[in-house]
Amino acid sequence: MPTYADPEGGRLIPAEDLRAWTAALLERRKTPADIAADVAEVLVAADRRAIASHGTARLPNYLELLDAGTMDPAGRPELVRSKAAIGLFDANNGWGHHASRVAMDAAIEGARELGSYTAVVRHSNHYGIAGWYALRAAEAGLIGIRMTNTSPVVAATSGVGSVLGTNPVAVAAPAGKWGHFCLDMATSTITRGRVEVALRRREELQAGWAIDADGHPTTDAQAAFDGSLLPLGGVEETGGYKGYGLMLLVDILTGVLGGSTAAPLIVPLFSTHAGVSDLGQAFIAIDPDAIDEPGAFASRMETEFDLLTESATAPDAPGRILIPGEPEVEAERRSAERGVVMDPEHHANLVGLGSKTEIPFPGTTAIS
Amino acid sequence: MPTYADPEGGRLIPAEDLRAWTAALLERRKTPADIAADVAEVLVAADRRAIASHGTARLPNYLELLDAGTMDPAGRPELVRSKAAIGLFDANNGWGHHASRVAMDAAIEGARELGSYTAVVRHSNHYGIAGWYALRAAEAGLIGIRMTNTSPVVAATSGVGSVLGTNPVAVAAPAGKWGHFCLDMATSTITRGRVEVALRRREELQAGWAIDADGHPTTDAQAAFDGSLLPLGGVEETGGYKGYGLMLLVDILTGVLGGSTAAPLIVPLFSTHAGVSDLGQAFIAIDPDAIDEPGAFASRMETEFDLLTESATAPDAPGRILIPGEPEVEAERRSAERGVVMDPEHHANLVGLGSKTEIPFPGTTAIS
Repeated sequence: MPTYADPEGGRLIPAEDLRAWTAALLERRKTPADIAADVAEVLVAADRRAIASHGTARLPNYLELLDAGTMDPAGRPELVRSKAAIGLFDANNGWGHHASRVAMDAAIEGARELGSYTAVVRHSNHYGIAGWYALRAAEAGLIGIRMTNTSPVVAATSGVGSVLGTNPVAVAAPAGKWGHFCLDMATSTITRGRVEVALRRREELQAGWAIDADGHPTTDAQAAFDGSLLPLGGVEETGGYKGYGLMLLVDILTGVLGGSTAAPLIVPLFSTHAGVSDLGQAFIAIDPDAIDEPGAFASRMETEFDLLTESATAPDAPGRILIPGEPEVEAERRSAERGVVMDPEHHANLVGLGSKTEIPFPGTTAIS
Repeated sequence: MPTYADPEGGRLIPAEDLRAWTAALLERRKTPADIAADVAEVLVAADRRAIASHGTARLPNYLELLDAGTMDPAGRPELVRSKAAIGLFDANNGWGHHASRVAMDAAIEGARELGSYTAVVRHSNHYGIAGWYALRAAEAGLIGIRMTNTSPVVAATSGVGSVLGTNPVAVAAPAGKWGHFCLDMATSTITRGRVEVALRRREELQAGWAIDADGHPTTDAQAAFDGSLLPLGGVEETGGYKGYGLMLLVDILTGVLGGSTAAPLIVPLFSTHAGVSDLGQAFIAIDPDAIDEPGAFASRMETEFDLLTESATAPDAPGRILIPGEPEVEAERRSAERGVVMDPEHHANLVGLGSKTEIPFPGTTAIS
C-alpha cells in the first residue's frame, strides 16, 4: 500500500485518543463494544501506518451505510460450514473488520493445531487494510495470507468498463530481526484513491494505469476517473493479463468460493442505495514450525533479507533495497513518536461527526 | 504462460509418440520407469499446450545435468516432516517433475480429507510448467495452487543484478462448462526465454521489461540478456514493487519455508558445474465441496465467467475477454488434432539424442 506524505495544514493526534474516540462513536451508533473495538483498532492501524485512504477518514462513509440500513452494525460472523482445516463464516452483513478478525483468528488457531488452515467469509463488508490481518498471523509466528474482493473499478484485459475490484492481497510472515515481511497490495496498477488524489492535484497519471470510458488508454485523471483502472502490469502487451489473472484469482478464492455476489455485480463502494456489499474474504494461515524446529524459518528469513538488502542498487535508487512492509513500519514509528497524521478535510469530518453524535473529537496539534 | 506461433520449418509429432519416446529415453538414462513416466507426461503437456520453452526442448539440458552427476535420476521424494494439514517432502535432488507430482497428490488427498492442505518440497529441481500440477487438483474438483522458486534472473526494485527468479505461480480451479480456470504466470514481466527469442529475432523489448547490467532501463535484447529482468509491473513508478513483493512471496513460501538455498544464491538454470539446484516448491489444495454442496462452486464459476466473457470489449480487442488458461486449452485441442509442434532445432536435438542413446526418435511430418 502506498504511504502518503504529510498534507499541508495537517493535524496530529495520539493514536490511542483516536482509537478510543472511534470505538465510542461506533458504540453510539449501535455497534456492540467488542465489534467497535476491532473496527477502531483496524482503522487506526491504517492511519498509524500512513495509509490514510483506508483509515478513520472513511468513518463518514461507514456511518452513511449504517444510517441507510445498508450494513448491520450488530451483525456477527457465524461459522456456517466447516471441515477440519477449512471454515466458512457468514458475516451476516456486519462490520467486515470484525468478521475478518474472527476468521483470521480461526485460521491462526487451526494452523497451530493442524499446520495450515483456510477460512472464508461471505456476506461481508469493506474491512480496511488487508495487511492488519496478515500481520496478526505473523505476530503469532505464522505465515498469514489475506484477500478480499471489492467493488468493480478495474477493466479486464481487452475489456472496457469495470468488471473486477482492486482485489488486494496481503501476506505477512515473521522475519526475526527484520520484524515481519508484509506485502499488502492491490492487484490493480494503482488504487482508485490515487486517481482521486491526482484529480484534486491536477496531476497526470502514468501510461498504462488506466483506460477511459471508451476503452482507450489514458493518462488524464478525469478520463481515468470516468473510465477504469487497469490490472497490475497495465495493458496486455506489458503483462497486464497477469494482473487480470491475479485479480480474478482473488475473486475466486473469496467471493466465488464463499458464495458471495459475482464480481461484476458487486455494488459500488460505499453505495447506500444499490444494495448490500456482500463481499467475500479469504484467510490462509501456515505454521512453519509444524515442519521445522521452532525459529528455523524466521532465521532463514533473516538470511534471505540480509542478502537482498546488502545487494547492489541501481544508479538512481533512493537507498538500499527494501523489504515489503518497511515503509509502513517506519510510518508506525513516526506515528508513535508524534501522533497520527490527519489531513484538514479528514480532521474536519471527524470533528463534525463528533458534534453530531455528542462525542466530541479529541484535541489535536498542528504538524510543525 | 505465452503460447508460441508455428515456427518456420516446424515438425509435427503425435503427443503419445513423443511421450513414449521421452519416457524410454529417460529410463535408458537410469530414471526408474514410474519417475520417467511423470517427467515425460509433464514435458509433453507443455508441448501440447504450446509452451515450447518448458517442454521436451529442454531434454538436452536435463540430460547434461544427469551426465554431470548434478541431478540424481533415481532420487525419490520422502515425507520428512508433517502435521495433519501440512507436509514437507525432501526431493533428494531427483527429478522436480516427479517430486512435484507426488507432493501435489499429497495435497489433493489431504484437502479431500481435511478441506485444505499445504505441501512443501525442498532440495528439488526444475519441474516444467507449474500449470500441470495446479490442473491436476482442478481435475480432482479442487482449487490447486502451485509455486516454485527458480534461478536468479530478476532484479529487485531499486536493485541491479539478478537476485530473484521468475518465480512462477499457477492456480487452477474447476469451472463447469468453462472447463478450468488456469492461471500460470511468472512474477517477472516476461520470462528469460522471451529475451532469448527477441535476441535471435533482433526484436526490441517493451519499455519496463528489463534493465542492463548497470541498472539502467533498456529495450535492447542483448543489454537485457546481459542485465536482469524486472518484476511484474516494471520499474517502481509503474508498480514494479508489487511484482517484486509477489516474487519474494513465492520464494518465502517455497525455498525459505522448505529450507532450500536462499534465493540470491541459487545456481544458474541448468548449470552443470555450480552445484545442485536445491529449488523449493509449494502446493496448496482447497476443497470447495468441504464448505458447500457438491458442484455449487463450479456453478458459481460458470456464472462469473459468463458475466466476464459477455462484458464489453475495448475498441482494439482481438475478441471477447478471455479466461486464464483458454489459449493453452485451444493449443491442446490443435495438438490432439494434428500433433505437437516442434521447431527445427528442437526436432534436430531430439533426433540427435535418439541416435546417441539408440532409441530412435519417432517419425514426424512437416507443418502444412
